[in-house]
Amino acid sequence: MGMTKRDFLRSVGAVAGVGAAYHTMSALGLLGPAEAQTAAPDFPLGSGYGKHVVILGAGISGMTSAYELSKAGYDCSILEASNRSGGRNLTVRGGDVIREVDSRQWVDFDREDHLYANMGPARIPYHHRAILGYCKEFGVELEVFTNDNRGALFHNTERFGGQSVVGRQVMTDLRGYIAELLAKAVNRNALDDELTGDDKERVLAMLTSFGGLDPDHLYIGSNRGGYQGEQIHTGLAPGDVNDPLDFGELLNSDFWQYKLHFSQFLNQNPTLFQPVGGMDAIPKAFQARVGHLIHFGSIVEEIRKTPRGVRIVYRDQRRNATEAVEADFAICTIPAPVLKDIPSDFASETQAAIASIEFVPAVKIGFQTRRRFWEEDHAIYGGISWTDQDITQIWYPAYGYHRQKGVIMGAYIWDDRPGQGLRYSQMTPPERLKAAMAEGAHMHPGYADEIESGVSRAWPKVPFQKGGWPENYQAPAALQQPDGAIYFAGDQATALPGWQEGAVLAAHAAVNAIHARVTAS
Amino acid sequence: MGMTKRDFLRSVGAVAGVGAAYHTMSALGLLGPAEAQTAAPDFPLGSGYGKHVVILGAGISGMTSAYELSKAGYDCSILEASNRSGGRNLTVRGGDVIREVDSRQWVDFDREDHLYANMGPARIPYHHRAILGYCKEFGVELEVFTNDNRGALFHNTERFGGQSVVGRQVMTDLRGYIAELLAKAVNRNALDDELTGDDKERVLAMLTSFGGLDPDHLYIGSNRGGYQGEQIHTGLAPGDVNDPLDFGELLNSDFWQYKLHFSQFLNQNPTLFQPVGGMDAIPKAFQARVGHLIHFGSIVEEIRKTPRGVRIVYRDQRRNATEAVEADFAICTIPAPVLKDIPSDFASETQAAIASIEFVPAVKIGFQTRRRFWEEDHAIYGGISWTDQDITQIWYPAYGYHRQKGVIMGAYIWDDRPGQGLRYSQMTPPERLKAAMAEGAHMHPGYADEIESGVSRAWPKVPFQKGGWPENYQAPAALQQPDGAIYFAGDQATALPGWQEGAVLAAHAAVNAIHARVTAS
Repeated sequence: MGMTKRDFLRSVGAVAGVGAAYHTMSALGLLGPAEAQTAAPDFPLGSGYGKHVVILGAGISGMTSAYELSKAGYDCSILEASNRSGGRNLTVRGGDVIREVDSRQWVDFDREDHLYANMGPARIPYHHRAILGYCKEFGVELEVFTNDNRGALFHNTERFGGQSVVGRQVMTDLRGYIAELLAKAVNRNALDDELTGDDKERVLAMLTSFGGLDPDHLYIGSNRGGYQGEQIHTGLAPGDVNDPLDFGELLNSDFWQYKLHFSQFLNQNPTLFQPVGGMDAIPKAFQARVGHLIHFGSIVEEIRKTPRGVRIVYRDQRRNATEAVEADFAICTIPAPVLKDIPSDFASETQAAIASIEFVPAVKIGFQTRRRFWEEDHAIYGGISWTDQDITQIWYPAYGYHRQKGVIMGAYIWDDRPGQGLRYSQMTPPERLKAAMAEGAHMHPGYADEIESGVSRAWPKVPFQKGGWPENYQAPAALQQPDGAIYFAGDQATALPGWQEGAVLAAHAAVNAIHARVTAS
Repeated sequence: MGMTKRDFLRSVGAVAGVGAAYHTMSALGLLGPAEAQTAAPDFPLGSGYGKHVVILGAGISGMTSAYELSKAGYDCSILEASNRSGGRNLTVRGGDVIREVDSRQWVDFDREDHLYANMGPARIPYHHRAILGYCKEFGVELEVFTNDNRGALFHNTERFGGQSVVGRQVMTDLRGYIAELLAKAVNRNALDDELTGDDKERVLAMLTSFGGLDPDHLYIGSNRGGYQGEQIHTGLAPGDVNDPLDFGELLNSDFWQYKLHFSQFLNQNPTLFQPVGGMDAIPKAFQARVGHLIHFGSIVEEIRKTPRGVRIVYRDQRRNATEAVEADFAICTIPAPVLKDIPSDFASETQAAIASIEFVPAVKIGFQTRRRFWEEDHAIYGGISWTDQDITQIWYPAYGYHRQKGVIMGAYIWDDRPGQGLRYSQMTPPERLKAAMAEGAHMHPGYADEIESGVSRAWPKVPFQKGGWPENYQAPAALQQPDGAIYFAGDQATALPGWQEGAVLAAHAAVNAIHARVTAS
């Protein structure tokens, strides 16, 4: 899905902290070095025969667990509170109904293949090999998702006269100014302690290339940032390059706080992917394999330990009855904000760990537009525009290029600034659309006129979810070990929250641990 | 297609030179400011009735000219020397035969949709709106082409022990070192002339974010560069980030000379596209519209001026006869290295201009592999690996992800270092494959074992082309104005050589100029 604030902080400076946290845990015996990585399960056929595992939640983690355990002969059942699989992996299309605790939305998009919105996870980095492995195994077709589109916009309400500036220019100019400043320092011999004479020459040459400096090591603008006029590039003649943006305005903007470096972050690096036709191609592929094991509409009401293993009491909404299932093991993927209120026999450390996990108040808003004005008017194809307004981002679809209509993500809010997520969550769905249209209009004049319909997903208000993903960058230790016969999975049990890869790795770890216990006994 | 050496030089520092050249031309009256851009033709129906235009060459520029002129009622005929349309836009598939002046290659790829290679242009930047406009108009489906894949490799024979280093790490570390050095200079007050006290704090914060510095403004590695071990990202625990690469080795490598900044260049910026199924979807779409106007196998032998307009003598290879055609105008897209040897009535300035254009000795080599080892073993999906060897680049296909086999570009040579293109051009096709496999093996051990078949295209040896694209960044003035009734087009008549967009813009300019003359008369 994205990044938590802590993830951002860590990415922008507290690198040492990550290693330190890990080493601390390691020194405390909480983790062995090998436990940072977990192998994909590959058990002998039938080796789980006779063992029953009840899995709580039919999201990516729950279905991965069921798929792997079933292959080894385990008897699995999945209790899913809602009426669909996928959990936070949600793609909406025309005709869908979106429910929150106090609202219902009818998705009024046209029924065309390219008019959909991924309201949960929307990108898969190239190195998320576990989830990509399932895509390959299941034949889920992939296409490139674009984070870093140099034609997209940066917008700060108080800088550059409130006008959007284009990515290629901001990025080019920032590199240019950094290179010019460092070249000056080198030429003033301020770094002679660090650089020998030969090094200095090479550093100056490197900076000239890095920043697009002129032969005097000054940054006077660069053709990298584009040419003046509508054409952007050279044509019959080169044209004039854009004047550099004012350095003071750049420094006073929030662009550099991480937005300009967003695609430098490991999980936001290219190449990124999305399944063709919607992210829910992944849960659909899982469901095709483990769907027969899922009990939809089954709301867990109690999680109990028994001498044999576990006993789960649940409300079967379809049959309007309270039921119980006993099993040798449970894998619990229920999101912490929901799980903390379910009566259980959890140890106090487990209960405390669950209670400690705060979920990000993520909100996404999808708009169907009557035409792809971003492509037609601005040559923006996919990618993300940034603003300091609550909507935070506008995503342009990396699918359906050049078609008539499109679905953009008109807001992706995760509390980049505190309060943003809650502010939008508390609005009614129509209010959210109206607010997001008003904010978007500051970046795209005439915005509201282009929009035909919209849908919002305020994850804090989604039943059985109650939030986007864990704020915590590292799962509490108590969720990485079993409590009796109950194992925890979901992204909340990893150091990769908010990513389907985390959900898969947590499932692998739980499945591996259960199998090791079965095999050892 | 790519960049000339001059383009590179300009991008890495000689920015002022571009503007200066343009202003010089402008001051000499050669160009008005408006002429840097040219509008797409949009003439009244039938306004060209009764005028005959003969077009030399059925590449992108020639077919664009014919398409636009025909729409306005002009009578067009296209003389094409070869037996196919598209010119340098060439996609090869299993069963194709590739001819050079002294060789023939049979393309032995499997006949599957995803096993093809674009041996000419292979990417379209988002701002090349003229060619993208035709893609939209003709319904040519597009998908993202990836230049910048942080999982791809950088390889220098003499640095880092000759071992490849991964893009995400080199890029992260270079940013880190630059930021650390500049932060030191700021803290040593070496830039107090440039930065006020407030600015200094902001610059330090910006550098911390830009470079992933620690709280002391030191670069000690960053999770942006990835974690140790096969998993790359965090899993159950964060793991340890990679140690930074040695700064001295980085400085002594050639990576920073432009390779690390490649995707900063305007025409290499994301978002980039390729047509689904092969770049030749574009000439196929044009041919579907103007194919009836093309006379294949018609080799131009003389270009003459007449009182009425032009007379073109050509050899009709299919009928084994010498023919002549008279027309009111000609649009000549024949590449300069071929054109310069065709007898003509060109003015001496025109002849000199044509002779002044050197074409880049570009070579591409495509390999079909038995498996997609780059994806399976290295999590490389699309993008480019760089080496200081002659092959210069290895391109991983941005199509057919997760399929069994793939076609990689095992070399893309354009004289990044002088002599490389000629060296490979002079080899026989089998020698080229062998040499490229040996070089590639330094980046991918076991490389040759993965390769099933290969094909090379040495553009200097291609009949009727004789090179990749003009070295000249700016077309000579004589090719941007008519010589009598003969107008010049092709990318060689623009400031955008090597790009299909240039070919289209030149066609538009020629067509506009002809129509203006017809309308004025």
